[in-house]
Amino acid sequence: MMSDAYAALVEKHREISLIHSSSATLGWDQETNLPDKALAYRAEQIAYLSGKAYELSTNDAYSKLLTAAEDNNDNSQGSLANLREWRHSFDRSTRLSQEIVERDSKASSHAKALWIKARKQCDFSLFAPHMQKLLDLAKEKAELWGYQEETYDALLECYERGAKTRDIVTIFDQFQPAIISLASHAVAKSATNNTRKFEGSFPVAKQQELNRAVAKSIGFDFKAGRIDTTTHPFCTTLGPSDVRLTTRYYDHDFTASLFGVLHEAGHGLYEQGLPEADYGLPSGSAVSLGIHESQSLLWEAHVGRSQAFWNHWMPKAQELFPQLRDWSVEEFLKTINQANYSPIRVDADEATYDLHVLLRFDIERRLIRGELAVKDIPTAWNESFEASFNMRPKSDSEGCLQDIHWAMGGMGYFPTYTIGNLNASQLFHTATQVETISNSFKDANFKPLLDWMRLQIHSKGSAHLPQDLMVKATGETTNPSYHLKHLSNRFL
Amino acid sequence: MMSDAYAALVEKHREISLIHSSSATLGWDQETNLPDKALAYRAEQIAYLSGKAYELSTNDAYSKLLTAAEDNNDNSQGSLANLREWRHSFDRSTRLSQEIVERDSKASSHAKALWIKARKQCDFSLFAPHMQKLLDLAKEKAELWGYQEETYDALLECYERGAKTRDIVTIFDQFQPAIISLASHAVAKSATNNTRKFEGSFPVAKQQELNRAVAKSIGFDFKAGRIDTTTHPFCTTLGPSDVRLTTRYYDHDFTASLFGVLHEAGHGLYEQGLPEADYGLPSGSAVSLGIHESQSLLWEAHVGRSQAFWNHWMPKAQELFPQLRDWSVEEFLKTINQANYSPIRVDADEATYDLHVLLRFDIERRLIRGELAVKDIPTAWNESFEASFNMRPKSDSEGCLQDIHWAMGGMGYFPTYTIGNLNASQLFHTATQVETISNSFKDANFKPLLDWMRLQIHSKGSAHLPQDLMVKATGETTNPSYHLKHLSNRFL
Repeated sequence: MMSDAYAALVEKHREISLIHSSSATLGWDQETNLPDKALAYRAEQIAYLSGKAYELSTNDAYSKLLTAAEDNNDNSQGSLANLREWRHSFDRSTRLSQEIVERDSKASSHAKALWIKARKQCDFSLFAPHMQKLLDLAKEKAELWGYQEETYDALLECYERGAKTRDIVTIFDQFQPAIISLASHAVAKSATNNTRKFEGSFPVAKQQELNRAVAKSIGFDFKAGRIDTTTHPFCTTLGPSDVRLTTRYYDHDFTASLFGVLHEAGHGLYEQGLPEADYGLPSGSAVSLGIHESQSLLWEAHVGRSQAFWNHWMPKAQELFPQLRDWSVEEFLKTINQANYSPIRVDADEATYDLHVLLRFDIERRLIRGELAVKDIPTAWNESFEASFNMRPKSDSEGCLQDIHWAMGGMGYFPTYTIGNLNASQLFHTATQVETISNSFKDANFKPLLDWMRLQIHSKGSAHLPQDLMVKATGETTNPSYHLKHLSNRFL
Repeated sequence: MMSDAYAALVEKHREISLIHSSSATLGWDQETNLPDKALAYRAEQIAYLSGKAYELSTNDAYSKLLTAAEDNNDNSQGSLANLREWRHSFDRSTRLSQEIVERDSKASSHAKALWIKARKQCDFSLFAPHMQKLLDLAKEKAELWGYQEETYDALLECYERGAKTRDIVTIFDQFQPAIISLASHAVAKSATNNTRKFEGSFPVAKQQELNRAVAKSIGFDFKAGRIDTTTHPFCTTLGPSDVRLTTRYYDHDFTASLFGVLHEAGHGLYEQGLPEADYGLPSGSAVSLGIHESQSLLWEAHVGRSQAFWNHWMPKAQELFPQLRDWSVEEFLKTINQANYSPIRVDADEATYDLHVLLRFDIERRLIRGELAVKDIPTAWNESFEASFNMRPKSDSEGCLQDIHWAMGGMGYFPTYTIGNLNASQLFHTATQVETISNSFKDANFKPLLDWMRLQIHSKGSAHLPQDLMVKATGETTNPSYHLKHLSNRFL
């Protein structure tokens, strides 16, 4: 039987979720609607609500409830998982002093401003002193959080529950030579493909019509969500039935907004598939970035870039965009599935994307281990880049300054992108072994695929740690061979 | 010198404002964006934040601070006004028990549902038992709040600070026979005007272009606000530099959205003109509905429906909407300034609008005084209506069921509409006695008019009670003669 303390903790977390979700609504509005002059006050509102939520989840009353609930737990799977996650969050939150949290927040806010300036001026040295501060802070936080094997573990834990750097390294070491070689062949093959280019204008209203139809067809519930426009696409959840996606539109290429929507709708399907009654509890929450990203990539890449998908959607696209009417599906697939070396990660295709991630992970880890000095980042970056991409970035802005993650203090985040890619391919492979799932693709019916993800991933919330979840769903931990197979089928 | 207690109260109110403004953001999002299934959780979020704000402004700590600040006040005008308003709100809030607040909230939520049903079925008797409950509750709350002369005073006080029913009655008694007669002449004259009707389609994107240009030209700051689309236009403030307007669009008539924007931008200019440093304090807040409505009507009716305004904007409208190219400004003014008897208040023109308000105020007051029984409302409504409008509503839905205010428990709200109309004309009259203000109209330059309102009304916040503010700005309390003069000039 559920103890009183456990029941009280559940109630406490429902209260905290009311605050977090209110704050998320303010954050969504900030990205989509906020007038310029309103930014400073919005920051105050969000900081106030975050402070209240933090206080409620770290104060003495909370601590006592948590201990009492642990001492009297009923050993049911749901309560064990919730207690495991609550304890984890509580310990991590309370191990940082208010002083370091404030120092950290100030440092990253300064760093962000200087990163923007440095990137504009293509000059890493402007950013370097701030990078040093953030690196020192990351190490200081890692020591406070604690770790078993190496400092990077404590940072990785922020984004990928239960992951160990050693395991990531093992996976990446196996993956890296194969993906470098595969990418190089894919790029060479694409160069001989003589692919067509899009012509003419793709009116935004028509892009939106297509995007909505596509998102609806894969199961995104517009009665519990919506799509808006922002510079950088994202997905955020504002309540148990309120998932907001965003995308961006280019007049000359409708696929940018469409793949943005497919990607974010993949995140959204995960959020809409979490157990609604457990909203705000770990059992009703997504488990990690690596699992979240697997869901977005599944729909964007495995479904959205497939022949079956476009056999169905090409006629609709041609109806909306007359300039596509003399395109065959095969021509179209060649255009959207080109492999090219690009210095910029966010512009990268499937074949070369992971090279960016592996490179930054390696540099991050060397920085944390003290094997690389901040001032040497540009040289290290450019050398590694040349080894993987057979080209050098034209400037720091196209190189080590391209992403905001470090400036936000987000060391440890990057590997989850590739873990997400690998998980997506592994989950897709496993699901499509089921005949009713793979057979339904020819009718562009992806409902059985979604049902499988609902059952194996979405409905589980954070009941299992990510790698346990992968084992339950696919029979093994993250294994890069499925992704290599997928890329090889698509590009070679 | 400001006492410590006063300073602490200011801080407390800044905190409460962070919560209120967050809740307002959730409310705005609910009206403009919210997916259907998200409504229940959104209500929980808003109720939670409202509860927190209520608690902070009514608990023992607050009570002690307030008393200490009153005992040690520095008698500066700002602090006196803030203390006056804080005391007023505290006393009114704490005089109601939690039990009655919850009973009230439940009753009006049931009543709203039944009002919708009764209106759909044109049957007042379905709504009558709920109306009786709300009437009893209104009287019960009035007794708890207290009043000097009559029960209605305590209800009026919710919307119009410092107003007395007796004063409203004195004003309305003077106004009523004159406006009934004026309206009847205006309707007769309009019938002989042979006005043109709009033809063709007015694309929403072009309406939006015109609306934005107009709102900007009268001084609405789009860096501190925006315009969105809702079924019912409104204006809400989400922070010291974040004022959100909404309007609605009809394809066959661009003036509905435009006058909606002018009206809401009038509210918005007031909000944008309040002392920003005092955001969240009475000294930085609008003083009453009757003053707020004066600002919206000033821009909608006095500016927006004037010849000077359209001399300037007609060419722009004709450029956007080619079907207007053979219209003269005079023809256009006749079309937008027609007087017609309509059973529905929200569709009413300037000449007949106040008849609706006077009618409902009279019925409300008789209900509260026990001179009219709930079951007799339809008969009383229809008889009064015939006396003023020389016609009868076809059904209760066109009569006493048309407005939501009673179903929301909003007795005492209605008179502020007419007070707003009277104040608007009086303020406009006073301002236009200044030659630089009236002379600038011929160039469609309304900046001097806005500057006057900024100085006389907006910058004052709640420093003075509404009637004191009117005396300071115009030399007298609300006087209906200016409005009668304005309507007579426009319609006769």
